[in-house]
Amino acid sequence: MKILVINAGSSSLKYQLVDMENESVLAKGICEQIGNDNSTFTHKVPADESKLIKAKAVAMPDHATAIQVVIEALTSEANGVIASMSEIDAVGHRVVHGADKFKGSVLVTQEVEAIIEECFEWGPLHNPANLTGIRACKQIMKDVPQVAVFDTGFHQTMPDYAYMYALPYEYYENYGIRRYGFHGTSHRFVSAKAIDLLGNPEHSKIVTCHLGNGSSISAVVDGKCYDTTMGVTPLEGIMMGTRCGSIDPAIVPIIMKKENLTADQMDTVMNKKSGMLGLCGTSDNREIESRAKQGDERAKLIESMFCHQLTKYIGSFAAAMGGLDAIVFTGGIGENNPQYRDRVCDNLKFMGVEIDYAVNDTMKRGPEGEISTPNSKVKVYVICTDEELMIARDTKEIVTAL
Amino acid sequence: MKILVINAGSSSLKYQLVDMENESVLAKGICEQIGNDNSTFTHKVPADESKLIKAKAVAMPDHATAIQVVIEALTSEANGVIASMSEIDAVGHRVVHGADKFKGSVLVTQEVEAIIEECFEWGPLHNPANLTGIRACKQIMKDVPQVAVFDTGFHQTMPDYAYMYALPYEYYENYGIRRYGFHGTSHRFVSAKAIDLLGNPEHSKIVTCHLGNGSSISAVVDGKCYDTTMGVTPLEGIMMGTRCGSIDPAIVPIIMKKENLTADQMDTVMNKKSGMLGLCGTSDNREIESRAKQGDERAKLIESMFCHQLTKYIGSFAAAMGGLDAIVFTGGIGENNPQYRDRVCDNLKFMGVEIDYAVNDTMKRGPEGEISTPNSKVKVYVICTDEELMIARDTKEIVTAL
Repeated sequence: MKILVINAGSSSLKYQLVDMENESVLAKGICEQIGNDNSTFTHKVPADESKLIKAKAVAMPDHATAIQVVIEALTSEANGVIASMSEIDAVGHRVVHGADKFKGSVLVTQEVEAIIEECFEWGPLHNPANLTGIRACKQIMKDVPQVAVFDTGFHQTMPDYAYMYALPYEYYENYGIRRYGFHGTSHRFVSAKAIDLLGNPEHSKIVTCHLGNGSSISAVVDGKCYDTTMGVTPLEGIMMGTRCGSIDPAIVPIIMKKENLTADQMDTVMNKKSGMLGLCGTSDNREIESRAKQGDERAKLIESMFCHQLTKYIGSFAAAMGGLDAIVFTGGIGENNPQYRDRVCDNLKFMGVEIDYAVNDTMKRGPEGEISTPNSKVKVYVICTDEELMIARDTKEIVTAL
Repeated sequence: MKILVINAGSSSLKYQLVDMENESVLAKGICEQIGNDNSTFTHKVPADESKLIKAKAVAMPDHATAIQVVIEALTSEANGVIASMSEIDAVGHRVVHGADKFKGSVLVTQEVEAIIEECFEWGPLHNPANLTGIRACKQIMKDVPQVAVFDTGFHQTMPDYAYMYALPYEYYENYGIRRYGFHGTSHRFVSAKAIDLLGNPEHSKIVTCHLGNGSSISAVVDGKCYDTTMGVTPLEGIMMGTRCGSIDPAIVPIIMKKENLTADQMDTVMNKKSGMLGLCGTSDNREIESRAKQGDERAKLIESMFCHQLTKYIGSFAAAMGGLDAIVFTGGIGENNPQYRDRVCDNLKFMGVEIDYAVNDTMKRGPEGEISTPNSKVKVYVICTDEELMIARDTKEIVTAL
């Protein structure tokens, strides 16, 4: 079975064709600047470098054209990996926001499309693009089943006392203001892998740290999400590349008045102009690391803030779960920054966390595995996340059961 | 040495006259509805019930008159405890916000008054009233030294990575947007008492939970504040009686638009119409407890939310400090709700917390002491806070050194 995985953004479309026999990636790539004059197409075949298309200028006025370009590349003699479109058994789509409507992944129906549309409000940047991707695929691959996999799905098992805010109750009833959580596909992927590494015990308490440009941390009990740091939107929780994360909410009206900002402008400040960028002018963690090494005080402050906050979130979730069997680091920062893992794990020694510094240092840009010592009461893993594979697996499961 | 402690609110003034020889309260009381037609005066002498004045209607058009009324009662034959005003050696004032200007308590000078005025912005309800109280006392007790004790003072030892927000750096530089923390006098009082109970070790890691109508939690390392939950204002952190505590900051612009609220109106919603009140219509924790016992689902949700959040904050601070020697519960809820202490400590068993349920149950409406078992790795204390005594002690120390 071959599954096409689609992650459609507002002006981009990422794809992977996965062979489910061995879960290998046959081809992957990205369409960028869709709808603009300078749209480009990149296509890679892991097994054959000669089939590479690198940032080739291709006119892609809309997502439907982009899908067409992808299918052409996948099936072409020069760059392709399949003989015809009919080899694609199903398409799995990443959809960012499913609110509390979807507890898991679903086959896309008219009704599902309508609900994704209802959720535009919560994912104003992502959901419309995700739906456009779904509709473009439906248009071109008429009879191929489409599956939607939601970033929020994994978090739907949170108890009410974890997802409710202490705001007027009618905000929850009338507007659906509650914690939803994001990066669910990643938290699900890495927590499942951690449980596997733990030897598939009946009970487990795991904190998964997805740390990238956007970062969130989840508490996972027996494989189910118990709590998470992101909220009704992906702004809450730990500080991020350009997002402030949790702050005193009274700061919002204070700054709006001082800077004479509208509600929308303030939202933009918090989402796009804050975080590491707001503190030091760049959101690139590698740049911050290198500046900190050169003694830059602001960069060092950011590293300390990030580690302090991360330590607190891991501690808070360990306490909420009443114990801790494993910590997982994943995402661009989680997989590639041994220094942060060192600093955070050192603070957690009193909980029985002990890592092997030498092994930890080897875990960047690729390798994954256990970084805790044999004596550590809490296992610590670096696991490379693979949201596309998770989407492909869900899609396979759903279309197999049809 | 006799010290008068003053806590002036916008339309109220609480006082205590403390004999520093034995730290006993000679008299205490409250002026209410100052500036209104129906102002009343209540005065108690702990050693002599016959000297009680109970909610007597007394015209108090301003705080200066209120101070005059207090002095008259303290020195009168029928209700008094001192022969004349000259027996008052110093006055200690609670001042809510000292921003980052005051690391400790100070003798009030012209300059200090000016800085308290600068901080009106951060404590718009409290600081003007506090300053009015100081000025009223200066007017009536010309030569008596006045001391200001700040709610924010204790928290000034926090490292930058604990007090900085990941917002544009210029908000910190231009507007002083950073974590300040509150209830400092209480956190200082109970943490000092806990260190004493621990046998005055050189090093200690303590989490102090001040839980009342307003609630905050602090991490105290070697007697110094390392982190705290409240922020630039007293809104951040755990949910409270009428305050939402920490929420996804993106909720603020979302609700402003949906409900068509101004920045100030939204601030009012978060400070006065949220928390327990917003969820169930009352902010009275005893009422919520009794409703929950009768099976009210909303009241049970609130109890679970509060315990879940409290557990998370204790865990987060234990992790941040890299260990935990003691937990202190104080404040109206902390001192009087054994059930919350039970639930929270049960979740912290994996950190070595073990409490004696029977002893815990006895700690309400008065008694204080240790509730952990002899085997518990972490000591757990219920300590009745006494901010007035702390203010009196600071005042004594400062005027003694003059």
